[in-house]
Amino acid sequence: MARYIKSVKSKAGIAPGTLLYDDYQEVPVSIDCYLRKNENTIFSQITLDEVIPIVQGDGNFWINITGTPPLSWYEKLSQDLGIHKLTLEDILSSNQRPKIESYETYNFVSVKMIYKAKQKGQGALMEQLSLIETNKGVITFQHTELDTFSGIRSRLENVNTRIYKLDPDYMVFCILDTIVDNYMIITEKVGARIDKLEDQLLSGAKMPHFVAKFSAHQRELNVLRKNVRPVKEVMIQIMKQDNVWVKPEHLPFYNDVHDHLLLVVETIDAYRDLLSDLLNIHSTQVNNSMNEVMKTLTIFSAIFIPITFIAGVYGTNFDYLPELHYKYSYFIFWCVLVVVAGAMLWYFKRKRWF
Amino acid sequence: MARYIKSVKSKAGIAPGTLLYDDYQEVPVSIDCYLRKNENTIFSQITLDEVIPIVQGDGNFWINITGTPPLSWYEKLSQDLGIHKLTLEDILSSNQRPKIESYETYNFVSVKMIYKAKQKGQGALMEQLSLIETNKGVITFQHTELDTFSGIRSRLENVNTRIYKLDPDYMVFCILDTIVDNYMIITEKVGARIDKLEDQLLSGAKMPHFVAKFSAHQRELNVLRKNVRPVKEVMIQIMKQDNVWVKPEHLPFYNDVHDHLLLVVETIDAYRDLLSDLLNIHSTQVNNSMNEVMKTLTIFSAIFIPITFIAGVYGTNFDYLPELHYKYSYFIFWCVLVVVAGAMLWYFKRKRWF
Amino acid sequence: MARYIKSVKSKAGIAPGTLLYDDYQEVPVSIDCYLRKNENTIFSQITLDEVIPIVQGDGNFWINITGTPPLSWYEKLSQDLGIHKLTLEDILSSNQRPKIESYETYNFVSVKMIYKAKQKGQGALMEQLSLIETNKGVITFQHTELDTFSGIRSRLENVNTRIYKLDPDYMVFCILDTIVDNYMIITEKVGARIDKLEDQLLSGAKMPHFVAKFSAHQRELNVLRKNVRPVKEVMIQIMKQDNVWVKPEHLPFYNDVHDHLLLVVETIDAYRDLLSDLLNIHSTQVNNSMNEVMKTLTIFSAIFIPITFIAGVYGTNFDYLPELHYKYSYFIFWCVLVVVAGAMLWYFKRKRWF
Amino acid sequence: MARYIKSVKSKAGIAPGTLLYDDYQEVPVSIDCYLRKNENTIFSQITLDEVIPIVQGDGNFWINITGTPPLSWYEKLSQDLGIHKLTLEDILSSNQRPKIESYETYNFVSVKMIYKAKQKGQGALMEQLSLIETNKGVITFQHTELDTFSGIRSRLENVNTRIYKLDPDYMVFCILDTIVDNYMIITEKVGARIDKLEDQLLSGAKMPHFVAKFSAHQRELNVLRKNVRPVKEVMIQIMKQDNVWVKPEHLPFYNDVHDHLLLVVETIDAYRDLLSDLLNIHSTQVNNSMNEVMKTLTIFSAIFIPITFIAGVYGTNFDYLPELHYKYSYFIFWCVLVVVAGAMLWYFKRKRWF
Amino acid sequence: MARYIKSVKSKAGIAPGTLLYDDYQEVPVSIDCYLRKNENTIFSQITLDEVIPIVQGDGNFWINITGTPPLSWYEKLSQDLGIHKLTLEDILSSNQRPKIESYETYNFVSVKMIYKAKQKGQGALMEQLSLIETNKGVITFQHTELDTFSGIRSRLENVNTRIYKLDPDYMVFCILDTIVDNYMIITEKVGARIDKLEDQLLSGAKMPHFVAKFSAHQRELNVLRKNVRPVKEVMIQIMKQDNVWVKPEHLPFYNDVHDHLLLVVETIDAYRDLLSDLLNIHSTQVNNSMNEVMKTLTIFSAIFIPITFIAGVYGTNFDYLPELHYKYSYFIFWCVLVVVAGAMLWYFKRKRWF
Ligand SMILES: [Mg+2]
Ligand SMILES: [Mg+2]
Ligand SMILES: [Mg+2]
Ligand SMILES: [Mg+2]
Ligand SMILES: [Mg+2]
Ligand SMILES: [Mg+2]
Ligand SMILES: [Mg+2]
Ligand SMILES: [Mg+2]
Ligand SMILES: [Mg+2]
Ligand SMILES: [Mg+2]
Ligand SMILES: [Mg+2]
Ligand SMILES: [Mg+2]
Ligand SMILES: [Mg+2]
Ligand SMILES: [Mg+2]
Ligand SMILES: [Mg+2]
Ligand SMILES: [Mg+2]
Ligand SMILES: [Mg+2]
Ligand SMILES: [Mg+2]
Ligand SMILES: [Mg+2]
Ligand SMILES: [Mg+2]
Ligand SMILES: [Mg+2]
Ligand SMILES: [Mg+2]
Ligand SMILES: [Mg+2]
Ligand SMILES: [Mg+2]
Ligand SMILES: [Mg+2]
Ligand SMILES: [Mg+2]
Ligand SMILES: [Mg+2]
Ligand SMILES: [Mg+2]
Ligand SMILES: [Mg+2]
Ligand SMILES: [Mg+2]
Ligand SMILES: [Mg+2]
Repeated sequence: MARYIKSVKSKAGIAPGTLLYDDYQEVPVSIDCYLRKNENTIFSQITLDEVIPIVQGDGNFWINITGTPPLSWYEKLSQDLGIHKLTLEDILSSNQRPKIESYETYNFVSVKMIYKAKQKGQGALMEQLSLIETNKGVITFQHTELDTFSGIRSRLENVNTRIYKLDPDYMVFCILDTIVDNYMIITEKVGARIDKLEDQLLSGAKMPHFVAKFSAHQRELNVLRKNVRPVKEVMIQIMKQDNVWVKPEHLPFYNDVHDHLLLVVETIDAYRDLLSDLLNIHSTQVNNSMNEVMKTLTIFSAIFIPITFIAGVYGTNFDYLPELHYKYSYFIFWCVLVVVAGAMLWYFKRKRWF
Repeated sequence: MARYIKSVKSKAGIAPGTLLYDDYQEVPVSIDCYLRKNENTIFSQITLDEVIPIVQGDGNFWINITGTPPLSWYEKLSQDLGIHKLTLEDILSSNQRPKIESYETYNFVSVKMIYKAKQKGQGALMEQLSLIETNKGVITFQHTELDTFSGIRSRLENVNTRIYKLDPDYMVFCILDTIVDNYMIITEKVGARIDKLEDQLLSGAKMPHFVAKFSAHQRELNVLRKNVRPVKEVMIQIMKQDNVWVKPEHLPFYNDVHDHLLLVVETIDAYRDLLSDLLNIHSTQVNNSMNEVMKTLTIFSAIFIPITFIAGVYGTNFDYLPELHYKYSYFIFWCVLVVVAGAMLWYFKRKRWF
Repeated sequence: MARYIKSVKSKAGIAPGTLLYDDYQEVPVSIDCYLRKNENTIFSQITLDEVIPIVQGDGNFWINITGTPPLSWYEKLSQDLGIHKLTLEDILSSNQRPKIESYETYNFVSVKMIYKAKQKGQGALMEQLSLIETNKGVITFQHTELDTFSGIRSRLENVNTRIYKLDPDYMVFCILDTIVDNYMIITEKVGARIDKLEDQLLSGAKMPHFVAKFSAHQRELNVLRKNVRPVKEVMIQIMKQDNVWVKPEHLPFYNDVHDHLLLVVETIDAYRDLLSDLLNIHSTQVNNSMNEVMKTLTIFSAIFIPITFIAGVYGTNFDYLPELHYKYSYFIFWCVLVVVAGAMLWYFKRKRWF
Repeated sequence: MARYIKSVKSKAGIAPGTLLYDDYQEVPVSIDCYLRKNENTIFSQITLDEVIPIVQGDGNFWINITGTPPLSWYEKLSQDLGIHKLTLEDILSSNQRPKIESYETYNFVSVKMIYKAKQKGQGALMEQLSLIETNKGVITFQHTELDTFSGIRSRLENVNTRIYKLDPDYMVFCILDTIVDNYMIITEKVGARIDKLEDQLLSGAKMPHFVAKFSAHQRELNVLRKNVRPVKEVMIQIMKQDNVWVKPEHLPFYNDVHDHLLLVVETIDAYRDLLSDLLNIHSTQVNNSMNEVMKTLTIFSAIFIPITFIAGVYGTNFDYLPELHYKYSYFIFWCVLVVVAGAMLWYFKRKRWF
Repeated sequence: MARYIKSVKSKAGIAPGTLLYDDYQEVPVSIDCYLRKNENTIFSQITLDEVIPIVQGDGNFWINITGTPPLSWYEKLSQDLGIHKLTLEDILSSNQRPKIESYETYNFVSVKMIYKAKQKGQGALMEQLSLIETNKGVITFQHTELDTFSGIRSRLENVNTRIYKLDPDYMVFCILDTIVDNYMIITEKVGARIDKLEDQLLSGAKMPHFVAKFSAHQRELNVLRKNVRPVKEVMIQIMKQDNVWVKPEHLPFYNDVHDHLLLVVETIDAYRDLLSDLLNIHSTQVNNSMNEVMKTLTIFSAIFIPITFIAGVYGTNFDYLPELHYKYSYFIFWCVLVVVAGAMLWYFKRKRWF
């Protein structure tokens, strides 16, 4: 199973629109429903069977489906609500690239939620969010439980908020806004760790784990980038739809999300550049260090190897070795050693090796 | 013969549309024919002579020609069906770049099929698929036998499938869909191996075969990329043809293939980046390791070279060497050795070499 | 807290347009007001309460608000002047990407001011400038005190200047012009330091602090680039607005700013390239130097190691070692040493190692 | 004289359209003329003086001028046929960038022919081809003799070929087609050599000439790329000319050339990437090898340096050195040596150095 | 003062259009005037005061102003001829990026002249050329004396040249043509030096000054590129102006300049790529060389270190060292040395180290 694409084999060659979880792990279904009735927005937990009547009913709604409903239920969604089989296939797939598709009676949006894990030490978590927007409301699908929508939920309890009316296009904005806000949080967190790595690197401290940390950050940035960049196209397409789906008074809100998205993408790119600079700097530091090490070795060797040789000469046992028998030989011997060593030192000093 | 282009010499300067296999290896011809008659789709194996009458007949059809028909038969195709000589030349060529071309009476599409070999240990296989779409049906040409169309074949036996009607533009979609699904499978497989290589590299294990594995993966990605990227343009051109050839109700299907193709291309690019990062990391690890090795050598040398020299001095045979004759000389000698070695150790410790 | 994005967590999931300082540090409010009345422009320091009446009044104005007004005051701005909540949110944010947004009754511009610190040794300072342009005047917001507008202020005291009339679009030009002029100053300063670094590097001098200096300059350029580049889009959008907000006679002035901005961006890019070249050159110098060091070591070792070995042989104490007892042994011994050493030297000379 | 541009000095500042060979080497003029008369195409060798009457005559023609006609003749071409002086200047220049220019009465195309030398061992040859297309025929100019048009010539002798009618736009296609076919041949040849280099590199064989071969291939690719890429623009411009010059029935032929050109450009780019990968792999191999070498040295040194020191200690001549006199000293001495060496080996084994 | 931008501080914050030399060095004013009267073109040297009357007069003219006229004169230019203050500011600035700006009554063009210095050994010189084109003539401004216009001047003395009529748009073409021709000359010169550097590098000669030469060439290319690239946009804008300023019959001439400019830019880019390749090759050569050096050192060490150790063992002075006393000990000792050394050699040979 590869990191950037997975479990594609099961679906090759089968009929398009065949409903199939490509990476199935059963998760119990739990459905939050916010329904607007008589100027009020009421929250309730509903069952799968209640979803279709509410969607076909009169009031505005936001239905958030967590877990893995049975395939037969998706089949009904297709028949009763006219959702295209290809849309449902994308909802069930775990490989869906962020995108938006407009059908006659609904918009379909697929993006990745990326958010900080609650437990410390764990990295970023990622989950696919699929969204169907009709002219009455929004249905969102997520395969596992999570909590990035808590802000939206609490605002939905407050009658004075703009979101309270459950206007579908404002609802879509709120969901995308929350998701992009979480991109910003995770980007800041990764960025702060990279900044810290840079500070350590430039402080000159020994960094035995540099490569491991570097790789971890690079991997995080790459996953972020691969999932965030295509969302830019999604936002641009939403805002270009001649305002059929986005009311003019909500356009500044979508603009705001787009603006934040640009900030995230540019920040990710800036950190990618920074990481690549850090590797270069680390390499340069290692090379400089090795150069110093080699100079040290060479200076030591060049000083001691010749004088050790001279000592070796006078350690030979030749019968006839006249220098050994003069009285001042040993003194001269030391003088020669000192002169040779000094000459070496002077030579390396002149070459500016130290 | 080069990897990315081959056997071009035979065709230089000859008249355009001259029918010629540029890389001929005889393969017996085998023709599958699906023909729609009276609301039924009937399968039969046909001969080369039966192809033209079926194409000129009334029913929808899919004719899949495997092998290397004689050039004279292609000549007839040109005369009887009005297929342009340049189209036939492209079908016969082994160097054809993925493309789509629209003529008045037919569309011509050329892509590469890439699929996993059945035998383990073998890499990806590649074959050129040429496709002619008329307003009645589809003729596909492949030079060697293979099995990526098995899913299509089994769906064609089922009367309840959309494909059963042999609608030409839906048929083309099914073929492209199957081909792109196989791109995804091969990309996942290569990707999984690269991810595994990364895990090994970062685990710190010795990797004597890193360069060989790295090169193999890089080569696989490059071949994939060179053949998959141009298909993007093919898809975009098909979908832009003002729906003359693609019925509006089939457009979402083509969109789905395009979507998967984008996923494949982005995944290939992500893995190319990852591979290039891995090489950088490997280089950094090797440099770091060499730095450690050099420090070890230098520390050993710097400690022992001076004290070996001192031992050498007192191994000389000078007649007059007073230190040799004191009672505590040997003890002092050892003290000096220990002090010198200790000073060296202290120096390297202070420099944080270990 | 990351360098390129900060304190985003506080705002995730809350309602859009919620007024909130995301990086609050209280700074006392100080308001400069230039008001045009009866053909005269009068300067006065005003309070927060006086701002709205002046904006709603008749005369042209430039109101520059320094510091952190209370959130309640921004609330009034939204209600009384019809400033969109999202605009005010951007003014309060410290992460705002440079941008321009046109609303029905005002233009909103957000850019970063970057200017030299007055104290020596300190690097560049950066501050966010938010600007609201109505059809009567300009309000600017800056969170901390600074002095890049001194040129504008002194020109506003001179009745003969074009700026004296407080024409809003000319006023906006003057502000952007001053900001871009400061980009040029800081770019020149950073550039001069990089040029100096290059001169030192190429002079062959020892550069123990090269990596530290290199990193500092790279960081400065990256921050500059990230904040200056998006301003290009801002300028292009201002000039494209079909001259609703920019009078035709002022267009050449905006063009002039755009021109300078292009110069800044190209200069930053040229210096980024230069820095990256410098790192390459430094690496090459280090490698060349290490190569020289290694050759020195190897030459020394290869000359002395063999002759030291020979000396060692004749230092052995074998009872039967005939060479020791010949009269000319010692002389021949030296000859052998010289020949071996000379052969080594000749070998390395022939290999052009020195 | 530089490789990519040459002999420009002679032309600086002189009047535009001044006729001047900028890199003159006299080559005798030889003119092939194919002329269509009464439904027949007749070949003849003509002189310079016959060119203009034929161009002004009735029949379709292809006149191929090899060599360096005198400047006075070009002057007549300008006066009698209305060829712009700038066009003639481009024909005479040796630096002309591939381009197409449309004048009222003719099209001018300049491209480089690149073809394999006949003698083995020689690299690719390059020659500039200038082409003037009128509504009656085609004049081609080449400064030196060569043979890439042999295919065209033999087809022109065959009455059944499409080329036999000497339709000007089909003639232009045939010439460009032949030229691009030769690009393919040379690209395949260079590519095959690069593939072979890769195989050698990955086989692990010693490659003393890697850098030389690498550079040669890189140089070949760069020259190819610089001359082939601009031809893409030429083809696109020809096909965009609203079919004034290209008849609709010939458009597929131009499309075919464009298709092959894309294949060549993509293949060149793929090989450039491959070459750059090869250099990286070579670098990595060299680094890995050096790492192994250093480890070997360090292991040897670390084992023998300490025990050589110990031996040195007991080679000293101190009067009072008690260990020397015990009976088992020499045995213990060897034990110590073995233990020290073994400890070293164990240490490096644990560090996984071998 | 930075290389790519300079002396910007003096102009920050001052009123736009304030006339000010930002990098003032007084140069005496010298004015060449070519004036067309009664079908004749007359040359004369004029004073600053004569400029405006000539411009306001009837005849076509080319006025070339060399040196630094007083600011008061520029003031008059603005008032009497309606030249925009921003245009004059650009003429006075030394940082002006190449550009074209169209005003109602004139075109303004600013480019850099780059030309070979007359003295050998000096590099390229650069000077800013500002040009004002009215419907009657052309005024050019250059701050220092130089001689790239000598070709134009001599053609202006010849009554039979096209330039003799002093048609303003043809005059502008001639000036730009001359400037671009000089770009070509300087590019060829730099290119030739880079080609020579490559030849030396690949010949395997020792290159102690490689880095210095490399950096010098890189610097030259970067300066060239930074000043030449923006001229492409200038040319494109001139040719796009719907031929208000360029007469249709002169368009091919502008096209010719554009063509040469493309050649220059592509050649600069090709040489930048080549330089970067050269650095890679140099690095690889240095690494390969170091690898050889290290192998030499290791082979020497690995052969002699063990046998020196063995000699050391038999140099010890143990009382009881039995091997010393056998008759054939010394012979066996040499045998062992030879075997050990031979084993080492065999080992390294098998590892293909030499
Ligand atoms: Mg991506
Ligand atoms: Mg941004
Ligand atoms: Mg960016
Ligand atoms: Mg960077
Ligand atoms: Mg490609
Ligand atoms: Mg392509
Ligand atoms: Mg994409
Ligand atoms: Mg995608
Ligand atoms: Mg990507
Ligand atoms: Mg990536
Ligand atoms: Mg990456
Ligand atoms: Mg490297
Ligand atoms: Mg950036
Ligand atoms: Mg941007
Ligand atoms: Mg510029
Ligand atoms: Mg730029
Ligand atoms: Mg540059
Ligand atoms: Mg550069
Ligand atoms: Mg390196
Ligand atoms: Mg060119
Ligand atoms: Mg190029
Ligand atoms: Mg390509
Ligand atoms: Mg490639
Ligand atoms: Mg590659
Ligand atoms: Mg390296
Ligand atoms: Mg530039
Ligand atoms: Mg530019
Ligand atoms: Mg170009
Ligand atoms: Mg190019
Ligand atoms: Mg190149
Ligand atoms: Mg290159």
